[in-house]
Amino acid sequence: MDKNIIEESLQGNSYSLGRLITFLEDLDKRAQIVKEVEPYTGKAHVLGITGPPGVGKSTLISRLVSHLRSLDLTVGLLCVDPTSPISGGALLGDRLRMEEHSLDPGVFIRSLAARDHLGGVSPTTREVIKLLDASGKDIIIVESVGAGQAQVDLKKIVDTVVLVSAPGLGDSIQMLKAGLMEIADIFVLNMADREEADRTKRELETAASRFAGKWKPPVVVTVATRNEGIAGLYQAVTGHWEYLKESGLFDQRRSERNLVHTMELVHEILKEEVEKRLEEKVKLQNVLKKLKAGKLDPYSAAGQIVEVILRDP
Amino acid sequence: MDKNIIEESLQGNSYSLGRLITFLEDLDKRAQIVKEVEPYTGKAHVLGITGPPGVGKSTLISRLVSHLRSLDLTVGLLCVDPTSPISGGALLGDRLRMEEHSLDPGVFIRSLAARDHLGGVSPTTREVIKLLDASGKDIIIVESVGAGQAQVDLKKIVDTVVLVSAPGLGDSIQMLKAGLMEIADIFVLNMADREEADRTKRELETAASRFAGKWKPPVVVTVATRNEGIAGLYQAVTGHWEYLKESGLFDQRRSERNLVHTMELVHEILKEEVEKRLEEKVKLQNVLKKLKAGKLDPYSAAGQIVEVILRDP
Repeated sequence: MDKNIIEESLQGNSYSLGRLITFLEDLDKRAQIVKEVEPYTGKAHVLGITGPPGVGKSTLISRLVSHLRSLDLTVGLLCVDPTSPISGGALLGDRLRMEEHSLDPGVFIRSLAARDHLGGVSPTTREVIKLLDASGKDIIIVESVGAGQAQVDLKKIVDTVVLVSAPGLGDSIQMLKAGLMEIADIFVLNMADREEADRTKRELETAASRFAGKWKPPVVVTVATRNEGIAGLYQAVTGHWEYLKESGLFDQRRSERNLVHTMELVHEILKEEVEKRLEEKVKLQNVLKKLKAGKLDPYSAAGQIVEVILRDP
Repeated sequence: MDKNIIEESLQGNSYSLGRLITFLEDLDKRAQIVKEVEPYTGKAHVLGITGPPGVGKSTLISRLVSHLRSLDLTVGLLCVDPTSPISGGALLGDRLRMEEHSLDPGVFIRSLAARDHLGGVSPTTREVIKLLDASGKDIIIVESVGAGQAQVDLKKIVDTVVLVSAPGLGDSIQMLKAGLMEIADIFVLNMADREEADRTKRELETAASRFAGKWKPPVVVTVATRNEGIAGLYQAVTGHWEYLKESGLFDQRRSERNLVHTMELVHEILKEEVEKRLEEKVKLQNVLKKLKAGKLDPYSAAGQIVEVILRDP
């Protein structure tokens, strides 16, 4: 890996950034890259945008990006796609709606597949956010198109979660059940020109008030296709950002996130170590053979494997 | 833990089974229980039933259970609920539909929350299946009400996956994208008395043929509320069971599943070990202090923690 790539990325060069991201797949290179860019991070506002399919997330994000650009803010846009664990296919159709921003050097767009990771947040999403932050992007938007756990995981990696819904979607109660509303810092009711918008807005406001602590999650009304409500959304976003800074939650959350990240890395490294030793150590291969032959149950086999790994370096 | 509980559970005593399941939360007790019941497992047919909300899964399952009972087969029914990671609330409403079976000693029903585990399959679901299998249940049905990854995880713990859908649900394409159809061994089109049933059936058949290998996933048509098609569903289920046995896939899959289970246990034990040592070892606490103070990045901290854990027992 060329040292210049990191420097060029820190200067915001999109081509170098794109190449650097491909290096993140490798755990050793990833560690090296993050160590080098870490000192330059901490300036960007990281925004997560999620919601069920069909609520117009992509159009809304595209409009928000235009608004941010009109304010001369630079943007990093990550689309986290839950990928089929079997065929490996990704949801890329909506990406076309971002085309208008693809030639703007002030916007960096990347789709990340979540292939190898349960839960839907790609293991490198966190690191790509750090790279974009270090490269000087003012706002980083993470669009999660996954469901359930993927959306909850979003909370672990962003500062502000925006939950987008639409009138009469029918699954508002389902969303509540899935615990999704609890992670939202801002609610957006998009497609607000549709029927039943008022009713859905009231439902959202009731739900939002249930999760209100010191921060009262606002319900922002938008019609993204007509570019309505976008400035209001950005106002809510900056409002939440200021709240995080003033309350001290910003530093506290980043510190907590670093701890969670560290523990995830500990287990990722241990996983690699276990795999390496299973390949190298005859003693461990014998355990697996006994398991396969039905001479050992999974608990006894696992116990023996851990014993060898911890006591016999 | 009273030794009699295990014996009574093996004899199919529902009360003892219920108590034994509560002991599974503890990793040590779980290991002991599974070791004792393991020799009695391997006879039950484990069926996973999943699908989006609103397709009538609970009613369908209740009817299927009645059908199985009319054939004098005993049933274990597990409802795996994706639980909100924050409030801990579970989806219990649908459980009421199972009430008619709750007094039948030939049916054991249990709701399991997936609280502590990303991905939606509760860490003990696998073990509860083993207990029910060892207790002599002929068929074990695992209902997964989760979305996305939870449903995909189902494939890891059951023999046969039944994917339930309904006409004109609108999200059939969404299901395809999420990789859900790829895991189905049997498709059920429930609520087949609704409009557009024929069209949805054709769509399902086209999709099913895409994933057909040696096994051609059948599309079974049911109207659970009217008790129609249930015998046909059970015929498809036994057909798949016979296919697994004859093709040798049954043994191969159970062996693969035991290996996956073993590796998951290895990491679960290592996780407990890491937590224990973080509490005990001053050296590790100092690493965390430096991380919190911003003097170490997550990668360096994780590297140091692993180093201490592996080299310094």
